[in-house]
Amino acid sequence: MSTLPPPARIGDAIADVDTPALLLDLDAFEHNLDTMVRVTAGSGMRLRPHAKSHKCPPIALAQMQRGAVGVCSQKVSEAEALVDGGVRNVLVTNEVVGAPKLARLARLAKRAEVSVLADHPDAVTALSHAAQAEGSTIAVLVEVDVGAGRCGVAPGEPAAALARHIAAQPGLTFGGIHAYQGGAQHMRTPAEREAAIAKAVAMVKDSIAAMEQSGLKVPIVTGAGTGTFLLEAGSGVYGELQPGSYVFMDADYARNGDPAGDSVGLFRQSLHILATVMSRPSASRAVVDVGLKAHSVDSGMPRIDEPAGAEYLRASDEHGLVSVPDGMEMPLGSKLKLVPGHCDPTVNLYDWLVCHRHGRVESIWPIAGRGAFY
Amino acid sequence: MSTLPPPARIGDAIADVDTPALLLDLDAFEHNLDTMVRVTAGSGMRLRPHAKSHKCPPIALAQMQRGAVGVCSQKVSEAEALVDGGVRNVLVTNEVVGAPKLARLARLAKRAEVSVLADHPDAVTALSHAAQAEGSTIAVLVEVDVGAGRCGVAPGEPAAALARHIAAQPGLTFGGIHAYQGGAQHMRTPAEREAAIAKAVAMVKDSIAAMEQSGLKVPIVTGAGTGTFLLEAGSGVYGELQPGSYVFMDADYARNGDPAGDSVGLFRQSLHILATVMSRPSASRAVVDVGLKAHSVDSGMPRIDEPAGAEYLRASDEHGLVSVPDGMEMPLGSKLKLVPGHCDPTVNLYDWLVCHRHGRVESIWPIAGRGAFY
Repeated sequence: MSTLPPPARIGDAIADVDTPALLLDLDAFEHNLDTMVRVTAGSGMRLRPHAKSHKCPPIALAQMQRGAVGVCSQKVSEAEALVDGGVRNVLVTNEVVGAPKLARLARLAKRAEVSVLADHPDAVTALSHAAQAEGSTIAVLVEVDVGAGRCGVAPGEPAAALARHIAAQPGLTFGGIHAYQGGAQHMRTPAEREAAIAKAVAMVKDSIAAMEQSGLKVPIVTGAGTGTFLLEAGSGVYGELQPGSYVFMDADYARNGDPAGDSVGLFRQSLHILATVMSRPSASRAVVDVGLKAHSVDSGMPRIDEPAGAEYLRASDEHGLVSVPDGMEMPLGSKLKLVPGHCDPTVNLYDWLVCHRHGRVESIWPIAGRGAFY
Repeated sequence: MSTLPPPARIGDAIADVDTPALLLDLDAFEHNLDTMVRVTAGSGMRLRPHAKSHKCPPIALAQMQRGAVGVCSQKVSEAEALVDGGVRNVLVTNEVVGAPKLARLARLAKRAEVSVLADHPDAVTALSHAAQAEGSTIAVLVEVDVGAGRCGVAPGEPAAALARHIAAQPGLTFGGIHAYQGGAQHMRTPAEREAAIAKAVAMVKDSIAAMEQSGLKVPIVTGAGTGTFLLEAGSGVYGELQPGSYVFMDADYARNGDPAGDSVGLFRQSLHILATVMSRPSASRAVVDVGLKAHSVDSGMPRIDEPAGAEYLRASDEHGLVSVPDGMEMPLGSKLKLVPGHCDPTVNLYDWLVCHRHGRVESIWPIAGRGAFY
């Protein structure tokens, strides 16, 4: 509910930022944005970064200033928050069901270029009704299940049949194929990721062939994440990449094997959680003020980057238990920098991103899409 | 950041509530509040329910209308949100460290009766300075580690030494002993919980004896949670109970063994997450719009209460994969009622609590303390 005031002021030293706080190292952040542009330049790929990771219009605009054609969002309300913040091109990479959401999506399509996924003819028909009711046009992409086992139609003729249905509906245009292998992003070895994306590419090719046999042109194939985007970029079939986490990175991506050998190793950790030591129950234990309400544990406990050697053992609602190595000083009030296990749901817990450079707070950005899950 | 509008209007049918939504069954909720009063009446116990579970002033006020002396909060900003909402007595059941938080706590003590924990003499001294600077008085309780292995001083003389230090500081009063065995709440058998609380009670007795030997009177011993409060109530040493989750309950409490035989079985599940089916990739699978950003998985996946027989298998950021039994109808747009694995961090993801009775929305309460982790 109540948006809390930011935990810092411009110019503050990091040590003076109130906690828990979400810190963004601007040098590392800009390195990540620039690196993504550099390594995809010349591939012919369009970049459409996923904004579900950051939910933050200033970041979306920074991505677009570097050439991204737009961003992805995962929910209609998240797209609204981005458009409110100045973004003019959003692909909602999800199925949208239910009259209130469809009406909002159709209205949003009058303020921005809006596209969305579908994997069922009934959902397409409902999208068409909503677009017609609002007098807007929505591009609809066929979501193909390329191995993630979540949403999506089967590749080949089932995908083509849905594409034909989209193309036939008033108020809609056929936007292409969405083929995201979410399950491949955190496979631990490059070989596993290569095999998964090779299978996905084959399924995309089958789907393109079936669509072209129907006389449909496929405007774009879009997909890919931080763990695999170089593979999709080199596939010859994808035309647009959707990485999101590369902006921040997290402890789980760092566990991908051989990170230096592939896309994950290109990026620096720009996101940290600042925590304060509030109790020292023993020489080997500290308790910090960052618990389950300040980071998501779905991908494990946070890693502690500063001070190196301390370990985050377990979380309760508002406590984090930390193991302190022999001889390490860590008085009450000490501040620790944690790397969250999973950046996306962690960022969603915060209202503000405290952006710093050379040890000082340079800007404070609103996480405008926090909690925007409608 | 931006507080989203509520997902429903007063009078709406549950089926028309937008999703994800946090639903509160008012009959079950009132049953839980009344039951807590009934089973503790005559025990001489004061009730001070923990508001970290709900972060919602209307719920805190409903608890106080039924006789609670005040509520607990886990953070200063959470206490501020409760006082802003009309609560006049808050115990912050946590250590508070750092000048900004201490100043806010001391200021809050001029608007409400405020008490807080300490487990280190330096923190007590800092609390005293803050109270003097603001001209307020703060009651400080000694947190004793009674087996949870988190914050807290050792029982007996160490606890008494800290109590003497508190009593000697200007601006502070010695408020008593905080003895919460958090680890015992979700032990699976009643015998385990009984053994844990028996140990805690012995440590409390040692601490009281040491304090009384110092000439200090112990104003209150406070603690207990939903999983054990009947044990503390019958201990002869506790004077105040702090259960929080009993208001809502969750899937993890339901896993406590023999729930009918102890405190957990007294309460009904009042809290649900309403989800919408947005994809039916196969006859045996559905995908709902409730993922990691709409429930906390620290205590496992949600249970599906309606329709019975469906199972929530796994979560990604904004997707939940559901197993659909043979023959069950579950068309696109169907709504499911989920019981979160862990209520507290799940509630913290929502801005609004949609309160219903007889299938209609009766009221919509703001979760004023959402995100209040400073």
